[in-house]
Amino acid sequence: MNVLLVYAHPEPRSLNGSLKDFSVKRLEDAGHVVQVSDLYAMKWKASLDTCDSTHRQSNMPFDPSLDSKHAFENGLQTKDIALEQDKLVWADAVILQFPLWWFSMPAILKGWVERVYAYGFAYGVGEHSDARWGDRYGEGTMAGKRAMLIVTAGGWEPHYGPRGINGPIDDLLFPIQHGILYYPGFDVLPPFMIYRTGRIDEARYSKICDSLGQRLDALWKTAPISFRPQNAGAYEIPELTLRPDIAPDERGFAAHIA
Amino acid sequence: MNVLLVYAHPEPRSLNGSLKDFSVKRLEDAGHVVQVSDLYAMKWKASLDTCDSTHRQSNMPFDPSLDSKHAFENGLQTKDIALEQDKLVWADAVILQFPLWWFSMPAILKGWVERVYAYGFAYGVGEHSDARWGDRYGEGTMAGKRAMLIVTAGGWEPHYGPRGINGPIDDLLFPIQHGILYYPGFDVLPPFMIYRTGRIDEARYSKICDSLGQRLDALWKTAPISFRPQNAGAYEIPELTLRPDIAPDERGFAAHIA
Repeated sequence: MNVLLVYAHPEPRSLNGSLKDFSVKRLEDAGHVVQVSDLYAMKWKASLDTCDSTHRQSNMPFDPSLDSKHAFENGLQTKDIALEQDKLVWADAVILQFPLWWFSMPAILKGWVERVYAYGFAYGVGEHSDARWGDRYGEGTMAGKRAMLIVTAGGWEPHYGPRGINGPIDDLLFPIQHGILYYPGFDVLPPFMIYRTGRIDEARYSKICDSLGQRLDALWKTAPISFRPQNAGAYEIPELTLRPDIAPDERGFAAHIA
Repeated sequence: MNVLLVYAHPEPRSLNGSLKDFSVKRLEDAGHVVQVSDLYAMKWKASLDTCDSTHRQSNMPFDPSLDSKHAFENGLQTKDIALEQDKLVWADAVILQFPLWWFSMPAILKGWVERVYAYGFAYGVGEHSDARWGDRYGEGTMAGKRAMLIVTAGGWEPHYGPRGINGPIDDLLFPIQHGILYYPGFDVLPPFMIYRTGRIDEARYSKICDSLGQRLDALWKTAPISFRPQNAGAYEIPELTLRPDIAPDERGFAAHIA
């Protein structure tokens, strides 16, 4: 299978750098083909702006969505964006690996999402009708592909637990796992988390590699998070709220998991 | 009072651009002094990397936290970072204004947080003991200052409601309001949200300005979100989980609001 690893850490000689190398080797040893988008090494342009189209009318106000649509439809995207889209189309599975900075992904990776996820590619696809609200949340360009996060955090695991002060990790990652990965159609596997990264000795590093290796070995067997598909009847259209009889007592992110 | 408006939209002739101009005028007319950090106009460098220190030993592995600490303590930060820190120290209130892109802030603003929030400035301050886990979540460099988000979204309001498919807006914003603003000590006011930005005519724009104006007029009177302070007894230390008798049946983000 084809695996795209999108990796965002500025230092190759870091825990993240080691784990990235480990993952590539493990996947290749299992016979997969791996491409790595090493965003810092590529000097990835993080900010979405008018320069993301090769030919734009500079007198018109810039509209991030409509300009993206126009550039995508007319082959006017910059080469860096088009290349990443090609990798996404090529991939059977996509892994995003990053350190948790301020409770989300690093800016350079957020900018990869914003620029590569063009209108007409990752959103704004499919029909809108009484029964459908576009191909998204379970449908879309990435349908049939799998995705998984590998995330490191300096804090302790209980700080990210159900009653931990930072908020539960599953909720912190919901905007990424549901909003960035499930939205364009990926099946999203549970994340692989590493906590307290300042305290890793050889024994712990070895254990982490064992667990990560097992997760990578099981990439095509692990059950995805059971997010509810948008157009399969659980949501009212166009309000896109859960039908009253679906998980009637639930509110918040957890209600969107079956 | 002094107000810093950190603004992240690439097009001045946009709804965000108009609302930014409106806010500046409203605040100045009320006698406040306003500084705007217009990140796109400033060509803000979004990606945190080794170039954020003016003198670093290039043979040492780059550690985002420790390098930040060293640069902050020794006056080795780049000028763009130091200037934004000065603005934060100067401000009595800070407003972050941005379009919601992929359920979070734009990369350029995330990169402002990552680079300006130095170790020793926005985190890594205060003592660690049996009773305290540093000055954070209610204490810290920004204590006594107020913060507020102004956020635009293309989607409909019910899509961001308690059972809306995108997740409740308060939960989507929790990593920012609690994790980025409350963490270094800000009192965080409820956000000002504008939905369905593709459908704004003059009448609706006028209503939005009325509401926003009232929020800005009340910047020093509005009750902040009652996030629980970390070191006032609600959390066990060092686990940083809520004490069993505090909101005993609650889990997730909402448990951290009194």
